[in-house]
Amino acid sequence: MNVRTPDPNPGWLSEEDLFEARGRLPMVYVEAVPVRLDPLGFVNEVGTLLQADADGNMIRTLVSGRVLYRETIRAALLRHMEKDLGPLAFPQLPISPVPFTVAEYFPSPSHTGFTDDRQHAVALAYIIPVTGECSPRQDALELTWMTPQEVMSSDVQLEFSGGRGALIRQALAFAGVGN
Amino acid sequence: MNVRTPDPNPGWLSEEDLFEARGRLPMVYVEAVPVRLDPLGFVNEVGTLLQADADGNMIRTLVSGRVLYRETIRAALLRHMEKDLGPLAFPQLPISPVPFTVAEYFPSPSHTGFTDDRQHAVALAYIIPVTGECSPRQDALELTWMTPQEVMSSDVQLEFSGGRGALIRQALAFAGVGN
Amino acid sequence: MNVRTPDPNPGWLSEEDLFEARGRLPMVYVEAVPVRLDPLGFVNEVGTLLQADADGNMIRTLVSGRVLYRETIRAALLRHMEKDLGPLAFPQLPISPVPFTVAEYFPSPSHTGFTDDRQHAVALAYIIPVTGECSPRQDALELTWMTPQEVMSSDVQLEFSGGRGALIRQALAFAGVGN
Amino acid sequence: MNVRTPDPNPGWLSEEDLFEARGRLPMVYVEAVPVRLDPLGFVNEVGTLLQADADGNMIRTLVSGRVLYRETIRAALLRHMEKDLGPLAFPQLPISPVPFTVAEYFPSPSHTGFTDDRQHAVALAYIIPVTGECSPRQDALELTWMTPQEVMSSDVQLEFSGGRGALIRQALAFAGVGN
Repeated sequence: MNVRTPDPNPGWLSEEDLFEARGRLPMVYVEAVPVRLDPLGFVNEVGTLLQADADGNMIRTLVSGRVLYRETIRAALLRHMEKDLGPLAFPQLPISPVPFTVAEYFPSPSHTGFTDDRQHAVALAYIIPVTGECSPRQDALELTWMTPQEVMSSDVQLEFSGGRGALIRQALAFAGVGN
Repeated sequence: MNVRTPDPNPGWLSEEDLFEARGRLPMVYVEAVPVRLDPLGFVNEVGTLLQADADGNMIRTLVSGRVLYRETIRAALLRHMEKDLGPLAFPQLPISPVPFTVAEYFPSPSHTGFTDDRQHAVALAYIIPVTGECSPRQDALELTWMTPQEVMSSDVQLEFSGGRGALIRQALAFAGVGN
Repeated sequence: MNVRTPDPNPGWLSEEDLFEARGRLPMVYVEAVPVRLDPLGFVNEVGTLLQADADGNMIRTLVSGRVLYRETIRAALLRHMEKDLGPLAFPQLPISPVPFTVAEYFPSPSHTGFTDDRQHAVALAYIIPVTGECSPRQDALELTWMTPQEVMSSDVQLEFSGGRGALIRQALAFAGVGN
Repeated sequence: MNVRTPDPNPGWLSEEDLFEARGRLPMVYVEAVPVRLDPLGFVNEVGTLLQADADGNMIRTLVSGRVLYRETIRAALLRHMEKDLGPLAFPQLPISPVPFTVAEYFPSPSHTGFTDDRQHAVALAYIIPVTGECSPRQDALELTWMTPQEVMSSDVQLEFSGGRGALIRQALAFAGVGN
């Protein structure tokens, strides 16, 4: 971040500068709950990603990532959906920029229940229907589709980290899934 | 409404009883703003219906209609979309039952700016993307697709009746179309 | 509903006519989740009403009631809040007519999880902060204030009827209470 | 941003580092539309700030500012409301973290219609009712209260910069103000 000369990738920070920025500024994130809908728009299935964390523990997570400099929210959503679900998922991007919730992740202990050890992230969260074939990228070990009831069961809720179990429950509440 | 014996069509009122009910009870309506989206979810075009009113004046309107007894909101939306845009419109029904606004139509003069001489109607309003071919039914003379800028122009706004010009502006505001 | 002569109370149906209409038309309802907020807008407490049903069983419920003919949603909310919480509750009516959810109550078994044996009701649900003194009317045996955690506990959830436990969870999800 | 030793104000960047970060990362902002409501929750008046820009031109703007590291959205809203409207405004912070819109400001020309020459800012926008006395800080030359009709008039709309005229229209659309 100490380069004042023109920069070929102005939207990209070096790893070191990003590390620094994460200790000083809230980061803008998007978070997506992939769903499959029935023809009337009811949620049939919710997609979650199972991956190993830094310590090798398996954790369940959602499609999530940073919004880059000069990138729109919709473009960031599309980029992260493609990264995590592959190029043939055919996500339906939201009509409105209004998220179903805003999740504020803080280094723990958190004010809000959402935690992220690396940073303070403000995540705009959307439900994203997909209609195509999903094939997770390599480092996500598994993409799992579950019914709303399964994803809200205590067993599955315990596998989420950082408060994302609550985020899923908020998504399903917004979708009118009463449990 | 004076029939106490079993009734073959319990969800249907006779014309006379419906006339009476409209003078005594608020009616539940759904209203849909059909849109075509670009791949990122931005509104490219808005669909409106041009039809003759009882006096033969041409008025511009939206997809709109009553929710029947024991009918869900989603089923009512689908039924009215099919009635007005044909069976091949392929509407994407909303993920959430939360409307972008609730339009309260009153016999004029109105408390809210929305008027309907026939009744007090509480209309849940949704933006509905369509991806297929639209062919309006006979009594709607014309289905017109316009850009957001065109539909918000003063000329077109004047063609709407009952406050539906404002409803369209609310829909586009929700979609983040800044005008 | 068979009176065609002018009527002193056009917004009121006779008991018999209301009974008939409830078997033929969806009714418009408002439903309110009363809350007390801390100075930053976080939910401190949720108010619920404990009352006896027709069979003498104690059930937990919310502020709820019909929208009358020619009555706005806001006026109906204010009227039902005053009826159930008294004239000194000082409710803060919502800025927007957009509800946090729309609960569709059907005679059981239900399409949506919300049930009401008497009717098909479409309820627009709002969170309503109160700042004053609440004194429930006589036929509500008890107004209880609970923390979000208490109201979401399994014991309390079991006391709700008609799906209103899920409605409260949707309200708290909208308020960002992660549980 | 090149300091790795402990820092007494970790949430604050030096002016230089903030300048650098603004060219590399989207900034998290909150934006507030102050309103005065009538007892039923309808918008009576909208508050706007009239101030001189860097070139001495008078521009109309809203309450707006950055979310600091480790600061919640609600705390940022409260801080910026107090800074711009004084300590006795008594703002009612929102029940939900869901904004009425998300305004994406880009260095012009913009993808979204919202522009900010200094930075890429993602602003979560809220309507904030105030019930107390407002006294703008010194560098805001004037706080003006206008009716919804006045603030949407072409004359006043032209005084807004960066797309905030559209933001106000979106706020009033969300509040159900039909124009």
